[in-house]
Amino acid sequence: MKNYDRLVKLIHDKQSFLCIGLDPDLDRLPDHLPRSIQGVEEFCQEIIQATSRIAVCYKINLAFFEALGLGGYDCFLRVAKMVPDDCLLMADAKRGDIGNSSRMYAKAFFEQAGCDALTVAPYMGKDSVTAFLDHQDKWTVLLALTSNEGSSDFQLRELRNGIRLYEHVLKESTSWAGLDQLMYVVGATHPGQLAQIRDLIPDHFLLVPGVGAQGGTVAGVCEHGLARNGKIGLLINSSRSIIYASTRDDFAEAAAKKARELQVQMQVYL
Amino acid sequence: MKNYDRLVKLIHDKQSFLCIGLDPDLDRLPDHLPRSIQGVEEFCQEIIQATSRIAVCYKINLAFFEALGLGGYDCFLRVAKMVPDDCLLMADAKRGDIGNSSRMYAKAFFEQAGCDALTVAPYMGKDSVTAFLDHQDKWTVLLALTSNEGSSDFQLRELRNGIRLYEHVLKESTSWAGLDQLMYVVGATHPGQLAQIRDLIPDHFLLVPGVGAQGGTVAGVCEHGLARNGKIGLLINSSRSIIYASTRDDFAEAAAKKARELQVQMQVYL
Repeated sequence: MKNYDRLVKLIHDKQSFLCIGLDPDLDRLPDHLPRSIQGVEEFCQEIIQATSRIAVCYKINLAFFEALGLGGYDCFLRVAKMVPDDCLLMADAKRGDIGNSSRMYAKAFFEQAGCDALTVAPYMGKDSVTAFLDHQDKWTVLLALTSNEGSSDFQLRELRNGIRLYEHVLKESTSWAGLDQLMYVVGATHPGQLAQIRDLIPDHFLLVPGVGAQGGTVAGVCEHGLARNGKIGLLINSSRSIIYASTRDDFAEAAAKKARELQVQMQVYL
Repeated sequence: MKNYDRLVKLIHDKQSFLCIGLDPDLDRLPDHLPRSIQGVEEFCQEIIQATSRIAVCYKINLAFFEALGLGGYDCFLRVAKMVPDDCLLMADAKRGDIGNSSRMYAKAFFEQAGCDALTVAPYMGKDSVTAFLDHQDKWTVLLALTSNEGSSDFQLRELRNGIRLYEHVLKESTSWAGLDQLMYVVGATHPGQLAQIRDLIPDHFLLVPGVGAQGGTVAGVCEHGLARNGKIGLLINSSRSIIYASTRDDFAEAAAKKARELQVQMQVYL
């Protein structure tokens, strides 16, 4: 079975298309944990243990680990190893460079860190992305329409032919690889665009951040965002609303509770 | 003295606006060095020692270090420390994410690694970039028009108002910060665009990769790319043509010789 169908099966097995974002901020760790790399590691470990039956994917945000220096990078590698085999392991690192450099980033995440998926920025064009696509058993998760305010600065600009930049990114990139290798980031903060996106890419998996702290909802995303082939085609990500659900020593249970609430909303569509 | 004038002074003091890119590929290390992290470190150290009077900037390409795993990241941090104070220390990492994540990347490079400058990808818009600009004593080096073939896929596309995407990136971003904080990546492989870029941003520093292995020349860049205020406003980068000038144990001398050749061409404009 290839990437796409394997992920669809996982979603049906777990009755969930929840992705949990690990963005461990020292300042927001539960009160009883030390504000240190060790604290971050314990935090991530407990979150993963409490939620791994509910989540189909963990998205590890490299920024929060790199901010801690060498020990933080080491912690990222250890946390990556904690993610069980029945969950997709995604590095949210937004890499992208000229071909020979992108090949090195692919090595870093797909080989050294053992990730299944990596977020990639499209600005530098085809040769900056195909270096990742050379790893055919992995997912390249290309930024299309992100959840932040700044998405209107460039992504939403109309090109001369009347389509918006992010639509052009979708159109171009779908000729570089197929459903088994390319996934797209589309923010839940743009529910109105989801139907139009599905007109362009009816069946691709979308990684949808922005549910929870940023205001998006599962129902809002599913209404227009489900794959047209009936195979779901969504990974809905929540980070802060799950991992910071409690600041006390019940944080892992609280995270599991929040995750379960989202999973129950997802089950309706499965 | 602020960033801009300090860099101009450095350029005049050294009679050079050469940036040397450190992209240490295990497969291209000199024959006598071990194909290991230790080999990479020795390679970078010798290159820096041999060229630091000629270069005003070292641009360390994170991809080549991350590809080596944790030890590679450690090596990056050690190589960063080798760059002398009279050279700008730039991390070529092409980061960029939503605000709270970009703030963490800024911490990683400006605080943890002690870099003076960081390359940043613009796709996610203003709030993904301003998090770096909050570090007012540092340089945010924004991708505008890159040197690779893929630059035509998105960067060169015309928007509805007739300007190209990279021009729109320039126009928008210049309202986010001034000459002391923002520098732009413009590839030497687009000499024809440099004059138009100078019409838009007459005085900003440009980091110009693509001289050497990618085909650009110092004269080609200077003809249209010098700042209009008479203060140079260019950092011309060469990586492979300098650091891989020889595969024998004279590699550092050979690198210095190549660097000197470029510096002599630059001196004409100073």
